[in-house]
Amino acid sequence: MRNSPQELCERLSRGDRGAVARLITWAENDVAGFAEVANTVHDRIGNAWRTGVTGPPGAGKSTLVNELTLCLRAKERTVGILAVDPSSPFTGGALLGDRIRMEERTTDPGVFIRSMASRESHGGLARASVDACDMLDAFGFDEVVIETVGVGQAEYDVVSAADTVVVVLCPGAGDGVQAMKSGLLEVADVLCVNKNDRPGADRIVSDMQESVHIRMSGRFEWITPVVSCSAGRGEGLDAVLDAVEEHREFLKGHDLEGRRRAKRTEQVIRVVTERLHAALWQGRGYEAQVRGFLEGGVAPYDVAERVLAELLIAIPEPLGSTDSQSGSIRS
Amino acid sequence: MRNSPQELCERLSRGDRGAVARLITWAENDVAGFAEVANTVHDRIGNAWRTGVTGPPGAGKSTLVNELTLCLRAKERTVGILAVDPSSPFTGGALLGDRIRMEERTTDPGVFIRSMASRESHGGLARASVDACDMLDAFGFDEVVIETVGVGQAEYDVVSAADTVVVVLCPGAGDGVQAMKSGLLEVADVLCVNKNDRPGADRIVSDMQESVHIRMSGRFEWITPVVSCSAGRGEGLDAVLDAVEEHREFLKGHDLEGRRRAKRTEQVIRVVTERLHAALWQGRGYEAQVRGFLEGGVAPYDVAERVLAELLIAIPEPLGSTDSQSGSIRS
Repeated sequence: MRNSPQELCERLSRGDRGAVARLITWAENDVAGFAEVANTVHDRIGNAWRTGVTGPPGAGKSTLVNELTLCLRAKERTVGILAVDPSSPFTGGALLGDRIRMEERTTDPGVFIRSMASRESHGGLARASVDACDMLDAFGFDEVVIETVGVGQAEYDVVSAADTVVVVLCPGAGDGVQAMKSGLLEVADVLCVNKNDRPGADRIVSDMQESVHIRMSGRFEWITPVVSCSAGRGEGLDAVLDAVEEHREFLKGHDLEGRRRAKRTEQVIRVVTERLHAALWQGRGYEAQVRGFLEGGVAPYDVAERVLAELLIAIPEPLGSTDSQSGSIRS
Repeated sequence: MRNSPQELCERLSRGDRGAVARLITWAENDVAGFAEVANTVHDRIGNAWRTGVTGPPGAGKSTLVNELTLCLRAKERTVGILAVDPSSPFTGGALLGDRIRMEERTTDPGVFIRSMASRESHGGLARASVDACDMLDAFGFDEVVIETVGVGQAEYDVVSAADTVVVVLCPGAGDGVQAMKSGLLEVADVLCVNKNDRPGADRIVSDMQESVHIRMSGRFEWITPVVSCSAGRGEGLDAVLDAVEEHREFLKGHDLEGRRRAKRTEQVIRVVTERLHAALWQGRGYEAQVRGFLEGGVAPYDVAERVLAELLIAIPEPLGSTDSQSGSIRS
């Protein structure tokens, strides 16, 4: 059984890149054996630093990630990259194209690149991408980079699962004011203005610096640094890496573990939600019940309320809730 | 109580546009009173034809929708438009900007335009947009148009809730081959190549015609028509409307009601899923349970399995499942 969970765990420990690739496919396709692997390698997860990179289409995220990877390699750090396709048939194509070109170029065994495209609903994309990062982490990459276009809730969930989130803006593509209004900047740990040789870059930097000051009181008083670079010209990349490094040192002194536990809790909730959804609507008779009520002329929101009431009456308070609040665990 | 559910139902019946606007806000914010309104006006829903319009950024969807609206108004049909912002701080801003300009221009009481921006997860965006369309429908608009950028699963769900889905492509913005590969074209009932005065338009039309022939055997043998137009120049719009009209006549002769019931079932499932999620993770102690297990060193997938097992043991087969299969309804 070359691809049994046990065998894949062993291949992963031996540093077999094919095992990482296979396990990421398992995570993406929600293959049953993945849970066993995840549980087995669980204690090898947590050594990699996870950096999420997001921003508007055209901000130059791929180029930036490629250049940052070269800088990290020069420091002898190994890098696993997950490029999450935002499920768009349009922009997604371009992203994958870039990646294929980069993958062809890369023969460095210290770099691993994987694209992930998913049209899964119910949090499936975020769940799968965190699982994929876990595999890169368990394999032993020093750095894990998650890149995604800043659209939609799913991609937002993907990138906010990282330790450090870099939001990339650039003059022309994407209005900084819009980004501020939307609240996406609230997930930014580092703001990076790319293509800083273009007109308007200074304006975005100063706009961003102002917006950062406004919200500096939250989140342990980390003041999101605003850095600028030109990834295309290879300029200013050290400033970006330094900002990520500073954030890393900051978190290590300020509840990194608590932050990671909260993100891990979110991931477990995603797994439970995804499986509960499948069990209720595919496995059991609830869809037929809904259809039956609707065909009988019950108004849709009444149908929803009846089904929900039936479910909630059945579901008890969690068995371990009192114990878990006191910190001990029921087994 | 000017804004009680009862009062809003009455105002809606009287043709008060302010009531539609308020109710769409309620749908968007998941206000408790919305369910009562939805149930009350339930039997007034189903008269409007719902057309979904999607495609890549820059394909000219907003211009197309504006021009189609003018054509529909010339035929004395009233039009309610819901522009669903794909939650992007970047492209979303532009979309809203266009809308604001169009809203300022519109003094025609036969047209109603509303933008909806949402970063809701767990299907919230699709749920809210269908609820909003229901309100436009109940108000009495002949046509309801839902416009969204083709990115992500949520937007896909939004547009696929329509009766007729128009996928808009154009030369330059978005590769037709990518669109085919991605499977997004599978939701297209009408393919529209916009900006057909630009070079490359004929190529996209012929590519699309080929891809349509490949998959013609499914879905009641509806052969997705490929039409081309230039919305900016006001050319070819009748061909687009004719294609939508043909699809409408086709569905009326081929299980329109069954198709609508299936979409209604999906919507009820979204409502139940959203509320169940809130009840489990916000209302009850399951999040604390997950945290407790993780702090106790249980591997994440084991935690998920334990919690899921607890939930699934508690949840019975649906009470009404036998009855509903025989067609009668338990009350």
